[in-house]
Amino acid sequence: MRFSKLYAPTLKETPGDAEVVSHALLYRAGFIRKAAAGVYNFLPLGKRTLAKIEKIIREEMDRIGAQEILMPIIQPAELWQMTGRWEDYGPEMMKLKDRHNRDFTLGPTHEEMVTFLVKDELRSYKQLPVFLYQIGLKYRDEIRPRFGLLRAREFIMKDGYSFHDSYESLNETYEACKQAYSRIIERIGLKYTVVEAASGAIGGSESHEFVSFAPIGETNLLKCESCGYASNDEQAPYKGDYEKYEEEEKPLTLVHTPNVRTVQQVADFLGVKPSRIVKSLLFVGRNGFVMALIQGDKELNVEKLKVQMQDQSLRLAEPEEVLEAFKVPIGFIGPVGLNNVTIVADYGVKYMKNVVVGGMKTDYHYVNTNLGRDFKVDIFADLRVVEPNDPCPICGKPLSGSKGIELGHVFKLGTKYSKAMNAMYMDEKGELKPFIMGCYGWGVSRTMAAVVEQLNDEDGIIWPRSVAPFEAIITIVSVNDEKQKSFAEALYNRLKEKIDVIIDDREISPGMKFKDADLIGFPLRITVGKSLADGSVELKLRNSKKHEKVSADLEKVVEMAIKMLDDYDPHKRE
Amino acid sequence: MRFSKLYAPTLKETPGDAEVVSHALLYRAGFIRKAAAGVYNFLPLGKRTLAKIEKIIREEMDRIGAQEILMPIIQPAELWQMTGRWEDYGPEMMKLKDRHNRDFTLGPTHEEMVTFLVKDELRSYKQLPVFLYQIGLKYRDEIRPRFGLLRAREFIMKDGYSFHDSYESLNETYEACKQAYSRIIERIGLKYTVVEAASGAIGGSESHEFVSFAPIGETNLLKCESCGYASNDEQAPYKGDYEKYEEEEKPLTLVHTPNVRTVQQVADFLGVKPSRIVKSLLFVGRNGFVMALIQGDKELNVEKLKVQMQDQSLRLAEPEEVLEAFKVPIGFIGPVGLNNVTIVADYGVKYMKNVVVGGMKTDYHYVNTNLGRDFKVDIFADLRVVEPNDPCPICGKPLSGSKGIELGHVFKLGTKYSKAMNAMYMDEKGELKPFIMGCYGWGVSRTMAAVVEQLNDEDGIIWPRSVAPFEAIITIVSVNDEKQKSFAEALYNRLKEKIDVIIDDREISPGMKFKDADLIGFPLRITVGKSLADGSVELKLRNSKKHEKVSADLEKVVEMAIKMLDDYDPHKRE
Repeated sequence: MRFSKLYAPTLKETPGDAEVVSHALLYRAGFIRKAAAGVYNFLPLGKRTLAKIEKIIREEMDRIGAQEILMPIIQPAELWQMTGRWEDYGPEMMKLKDRHNRDFTLGPTHEEMVTFLVKDELRSYKQLPVFLYQIGLKYRDEIRPRFGLLRAREFIMKDGYSFHDSYESLNETYEACKQAYSRIIERIGLKYTVVEAASGAIGGSESHEFVSFAPIGETNLLKCESCGYASNDEQAPYKGDYEKYEEEEKPLTLVHTPNVRTVQQVADFLGVKPSRIVKSLLFVGRNGFVMALIQGDKELNVEKLKVQMQDQSLRLAEPEEVLEAFKVPIGFIGPVGLNNVTIVADYGVKYMKNVVVGGMKTDYHYVNTNLGRDFKVDIFADLRVVEPNDPCPICGKPLSGSKGIELGHVFKLGTKYSKAMNAMYMDEKGELKPFIMGCYGWGVSRTMAAVVEQLNDEDGIIWPRSVAPFEAIITIVSVNDEKQKSFAEALYNRLKEKIDVIIDDREISPGMKFKDADLIGFPLRITVGKSLADGSVELKLRNSKKHEKVSADLEKVVEMAIKMLDDYDPHKRE
Repeated sequence: MRFSKLYAPTLKETPGDAEVVSHALLYRAGFIRKAAAGVYNFLPLGKRTLAKIEKIIREEMDRIGAQEILMPIIQPAELWQMTGRWEDYGPEMMKLKDRHNRDFTLGPTHEEMVTFLVKDELRSYKQLPVFLYQIGLKYRDEIRPRFGLLRAREFIMKDGYSFHDSYESLNETYEACKQAYSRIIERIGLKYTVVEAASGAIGGSESHEFVSFAPIGETNLLKCESCGYASNDEQAPYKGDYEKYEEEEKPLTLVHTPNVRTVQQVADFLGVKPSRIVKSLLFVGRNGFVMALIQGDKELNVEKLKVQMQDQSLRLAEPEEVLEAFKVPIGFIGPVGLNNVTIVADYGVKYMKNVVVGGMKTDYHYVNTNLGRDFKVDIFADLRVVEPNDPCPICGKPLSGSKGIELGHVFKLGTKYSKAMNAMYMDEKGELKPFIMGCYGWGVSRTMAAVVEQLNDEDGIIWPRSVAPFEAIITIVSVNDEKQKSFAEALYNRLKEKIDVIIDDREISPGMKFKDADLIGFPLRITVGKSLADGSVELKLRNSKKHEKVSADLEKVVEMAIKMLDDYDPHKRE
């Protein structure tokens, strides 16, 4: 490819809506352009990197016997009604009607579609297991799309689905897919971790996430350096001690607390520590209101609550709903005197004494409230978000915390979808049984952003060789210098047989060429400039300040270029 | 690939909605499955063939310097409002609203999006020409989706767009793309023709279609065997003579014609030839009603009428609209006494005398109606659909007719979109000018169907080697015969290094294996069966009944297999 022909508009300025480095750099370097909020165009450089990511994923999926298919983006509502997810999925699901007024969704995922696809055609245990996957666009109508490709509304996913006649078979495929995912992320060259994860709205029993480290990541990671345990904070169980309040119960008192609503406001107003307050959070689910109680200085883990209540539709109640149902503003809600609402409390609440809770009356709180005497709890459970320095649930040593970007997610679905859609196979005895299923997602377009989050510096992107749009750039310092030009062109013709190379033949200043090369982030730059007169060219890796002088002999330059690329570690800074 | 692991459910029965052979065979052979009307899943075999078609297209587009990008499927309404197509496109455009109530379309095409993409970033004549393309899903909400992949609502297209600073440059790219398209269709191996075409709702000055021959095709082709002229019937000008009625004008008479509405009914009732009747067709456009007149035995070419009236929104009036506006049912409409309606007539009408037209009164027709005396015409034009045996517009020899499936379509757009969207570049003198554009479509998924329409027999599909899901199948007649199995496996391991091969290792009868192989249509079948005991295996091409016995020596079999594939012409029947 010739840079003079490449459509890659680069920018000096960062676009106003770019809050993270991947968004800014992919935009500035001419990889992506916005079409609407959370909807992007991929320019030629972006498409090249995407294609390389997709190729790696495809090769690793094919290697474990998964078969590529292509399912439609527009899916009829009927399929989603069979599993109840047409209603459950909520406003993130994009919906449309066709000209005959039939309902469709732009698929956020394809469990229903794939189950419908094999139903009645995949009939015998003899055909199992079957593992199908696709690479294509997915839709999630994020209320606030941001972070460029990291939280987009239209994005590229690899999604795979497996069908089995036993949990042993599912476990085998699940492990094979985990290994394939490790190979994918290692071939791309990202630093990552695999953690236990919550299965959320997808459902199922077991789940793991492949998370690429990034300080701006939305996934909070917990790791035990001692035993190797790793989890995201939505999933990690709290296995530590609970603070025990060794004191006498004092008399319950209703205190006037005007305009004091949040835990911090209450603590400040009453002059107590947040750990003396019990937070009361109201949720709405399938069976009405649920109140969750937790110590004021701890965070409630909503995923744990959903699992405990077996209700994925649970969501925080809106202030208007609370006011209408309880005649009290949401800031003054509490468990005292509350009837007809299931009250679930974190185990820690059991050991608290003389706590502050909402007064169930505008501008009032109760102080010295005590469990049993003043309020009841229906269910105790582990509801807290585990934090760094909490003990490891396996070995008890303190956990360390970090952040990352979720790239891969594997789930053991079990029979959730096959039962709901009556998708059965015949077993050895001739009995019909629902398929046991697994599903396996990988964020393709967000992988591109995750790479940039890890690999960048003040000059631009530092692509690993695996997914760089071009592995090397030949920069002609002066295109009007016939010698430089002819050597560079000869080198280009020779090199392009071996690697993916671009030649910068534009009639602009060498400084602008260097700036673009650094911004775009080609792993290797071969500069054909003044030193050619002395019989040499310069080779420089993107992550290094060192210029290697190599004598201007085509074979020697090619050899050195390939050697330098073979040894390239973009995570190093030299 | 092992057939025992392949997800390819084959069927004996043709699905009820399959009206054409490609739909029936792609379904029966396990390439596609319906998800909704006009919306399909591609199973592993279908995805493999699609990938091969896409690879050929990609290579030929890249070869002419086009650069691959990826634009979103969901496009904001604002872009389409800038060109007026948000309203003009009609009910075939699928629309949706996001959670913030903003309007989007599922792109039926991407002229607006690509123009918006380069606008303000492609600035100088020095950067031109630029040619961008993508391969992805497109949406057209067909009122009656049918014919499987041939008239789907969700389908895969390659769409390309070029930007120029002169018509010479556009012409160069246009010609290059035509050559690329010829190479694509020739590499796939289809019999085809290139014809002049109407540019329709896309707009622009010149247009060509690449049409694959098929008796069920929706494109009517006209060709001159003498001079080589070729066109589709929407575009071909009529350059023949017009019938001249050499007779006296007779007195106009209003005749009672109860319940007689169509040309044929009128002809039968009055005992005249259809050529004595003038058909009056009412259209609605931007500026109200337009009446088109044509000799009763000729067909009106609506595309020509749209071009003549410079109004792409023209459509046939609905019966209710006619009744409301003229107080006459649509079957009795005619030009006599008609005011405030533009009347456009085919040139042929000029020479007709004493014709029958609608009586502008329920159940009445006028007979002996004469132009000038009884009705006026505002515009005469060539409005007729040219038919086989009409004279060639170039050399006058009779045209021959055939049918085909439109696969490629290239358009010279000119400045239609750049002007509407204010997309400008700076020319050598520093003046801002609108881009001169071209656009270039190729139906990817329908190419798969077009191949099957040309290449099939009573047993199934006959894939050309280029796009077959696998080039060859090794059929083990008896998988329990250790000798057969081990030779077949050794052959498979050897052959898969050279070609795309599948081994049929299923425990089913050889008859079922042969049937599946023929139905799916692998170019070459290598049968490892009883004859192995005598030291031979059999090679058979899909289009031939001949079995080649080859001695069971791995190298010899591989050599013969490749030779037979190299010589394979799937259009032959032996």
